[in-house]
Amino acid sequence: MSVVRVDLETPESRARAIRREADEPHSQVVRFGPDKPLRLDAGVELTPFQIAYETYGELNAARSNAILICHALSGDQYVIGTHPATGKPGWWETMVGPGLPIDTDRFFVICANVPGGCMGTTGPASRDPANGEPYGLAFPVVTVRDMVRSQAMLLDHLGIDTLLCVTGGSMGGMQVLQWAASYPERVFAALPLATAARHSAQNIAFHEVGRQAIMADPDWRNGRYLIEGTNPRRGLAVARMAAHITYLSDAALHRKFGRRYQDRDAPTFSFDADFQVESYLRHQGSSFVERFDANSYLYITRAMDYFDLAADYGGTLAHAFRGSRSRFCVVSFTSDWLFPTSDARQIVHALNASGASVSFAEIESDKGHDAFLLEEPELFDITRGFIEAAARARGLPSAGS
Amino acid sequence: MSVVRVDLETPESRARAIRREADEPHSQVVRFGPDKPLRLDAGVELTPFQIAYETYGELNAARSNAILICHALSGDQYVIGTHPATGKPGWWETMVGPGLPIDTDRFFVICANVPGGCMGTTGPASRDPANGEPYGLAFPVVTVRDMVRSQAMLLDHLGIDTLLCVTGGSMGGMQVLQWAASYPERVFAALPLATAARHSAQNIAFHEVGRQAIMADPDWRNGRYLIEGTNPRRGLAVARMAAHITYLSDAALHRKFGRRYQDRDAPTFSFDADFQVESYLRHQGSSFVERFDANSYLYITRAMDYFDLAADYGGTLAHAFRGSRSRFCVVSFTSDWLFPTSDARQIVHALNASGASVSFAEIESDKGHDAFLLEEPELFDITRGFIEAAARARGLPSAGS
Repeated sequence: MSVVRVDLETPESRARAIRREADEPHSQVVRFGPDKPLRLDAGVELTPFQIAYETYGELNAARSNAILICHALSGDQYVIGTHPATGKPGWWETMVGPGLPIDTDRFFVICANVPGGCMGTTGPASRDPANGEPYGLAFPVVTVRDMVRSQAMLLDHLGIDTLLCVTGGSMGGMQVLQWAASYPERVFAALPLATAARHSAQNIAFHEVGRQAIMADPDWRNGRYLIEGTNPRRGLAVARMAAHITYLSDAALHRKFGRRYQDRDAPTFSFDADFQVESYLRHQGSSFVERFDANSYLYITRAMDYFDLAADYGGTLAHAFRGSRSRFCVVSFTSDWLFPTSDARQIVHALNASGASVSFAEIESDKGHDAFLLEEPELFDITRGFIEAAARARGLPSAGS
Repeated sequence: MSVVRVDLETPESRARAIRREADEPHSQVVRFGPDKPLRLDAGVELTPFQIAYETYGELNAARSNAILICHALSGDQYVIGTHPATGKPGWWETMVGPGLPIDTDRFFVICANVPGGCMGTTGPASRDPANGEPYGLAFPVVTVRDMVRSQAMLLDHLGIDTLLCVTGGSMGGMQVLQWAASYPERVFAALPLATAARHSAQNIAFHEVGRQAIMADPDWRNGRYLIEGTNPRRGLAVARMAAHITYLSDAALHRKFGRRYQDRDAPTFSFDADFQVESYLRHQGSSFVERFDANSYLYITRAMDYFDLAADYGGTLAHAFRGSRSRFCVVSFTSDWLFPTSDARQIVHALNASGASVSFAEIESDKGHDAFLLEEPELFDITRGFIEAAARARGLPSAGS
């Protein structure tokens, strides 16, 4: 982890820190030259190409204890510890760390920023070698398979042949499934959480609203805002607000906010944020624009929309896992309406049809899609048990030994 | 119905037609002078105040066959027939007309544009008598109760004491409930569809996203766009797109669009509307801005957010209906996640607790919230049966006699 300190006092200094991160991240970076381009599904070769990643824990001598974590839409490689560019805690502090379910005392944990992201892996905010300016829309559209392909390049660089486990939720879970399909021999165990084998029409629709909100902002400047010195803050904030609702459940919003007023006892009969839920949403929007790049939001949502694993295997999802010797554990949450349990069941049915080893857990929770990021004891138990069993099967020393 | 013809050939002429409608609608209008202001919950008196409304069928001599239809967020008084300002069919053509469940051969059907709307009832696009300019944000915030109060003024004007039935879906259903609470003696039968007695936190959140999208559009000009000659088209389109997703169900979107491409066989690896669902949503957004006023969208969503019928009765919903002699039929749809059946059950429980006469139907449908506007035979049967029974109980001649 980095020890470089940056000034994060003002929104402007935080914005600068984020922008700097796109080319020169605080994390570890591997740079691939023209001899090793990233071959994209769009049919182009991205070069030069760099991957920004963090690792936690120690790789054992047999190189058999590596766990790859795949991040979701708005995540990045800073899984735990203080984020060097936002000053906030990592996004999976509850799950990853010494003695936690993904135990950094025992496992070598890797997380890489995805291509198209804005935290140091090449993306639309990175400098285009053709002209030295940020790519903007000149950046090619990437897919979930491209993300996984980039991670395989990283593993090659690190000298890791087979992952003990690959895990992640939401878009991270899509990557887990893609890993199992693209590199079955490199995946000992796969733990996809709150995810689907294809993005639904409703989910594409919500993403399209977010993209339209960004593109409707005059400060977006056809994607050239970094060059022209503007920032489509309002559009990105609206996109985030709409998306954020989909990450929670009706029940969670009711429990957290209900119809309670914010700092008042009665309605103001105005368009102020009378209700706590409005105030909360506005905060979600405005804090997101400080840490995320609007074009990255376009590219990463697009990658999720394009994800349809069965389509790459003749329309039959089971064919994606044919002959797989990986062990799977699929997890969904009862109140997740973005990636409902029916999506998880499709994955499980396909894995069963392909003869794979699979267990499935639907966890009772009212926290909605975001449950995989939150305090969910049952998720922790399942994750710990699944990884422990995989480690044992792979001949690693058991916990506490 | 009006016979005045307007040019609706171009987007500009349609926009002009809509704008003209705000002050001088094609429909019938009743204008109330300073002696009869609309007393608003916000504590102000709106004057002068006009109500634009349409009627269908004939009022009988006993004035006992009137049915009031309350429109939803984006509806208006043009229930059936060609809309004079948009050229499109009325919004409830499937339900209302000769021989249809709400039978204009037998009943006198009334529908009025709500205060805050943009089709001729006083709203933010109307001229403020103080300066002759469109009100914009100088228009006071209205509530569902204010809407109902305005409709009661209209009934007084029409000389109708008691409604045979009041019905409507979504925000229309909120008005139905408010009618039953505010004027129980004027409501013989009440048929609220796809609605709730209070707007949920999730629904407030979705509305807030829409309002933020409008207010983020620089062409909104702090609500003064009509004066300054701009139009927050992009913001309103984004608001409509986000809302439109909530009117459908995941299943309906899957059935209608799935992941099918629009006019192509493969992804373009771009931000074009590759998917049919994207193309559909964009169309929903762009066609809405041609027929709706952005400030009206702010005001009417706000009215829905503020709706909490129990709050006006000491927090106990049953008290809103205490002593009511109206007969109720409450209808919900299985796939409506905006106003789910649990909301309808709350209404039914309160009606039961208050000793009211109530029947309840949850209709199996995959069409989501919009089901109340669509071809739903079971809804038609229930509506026809409920209104028929009310007519019979009120001593009206039965159908076909």
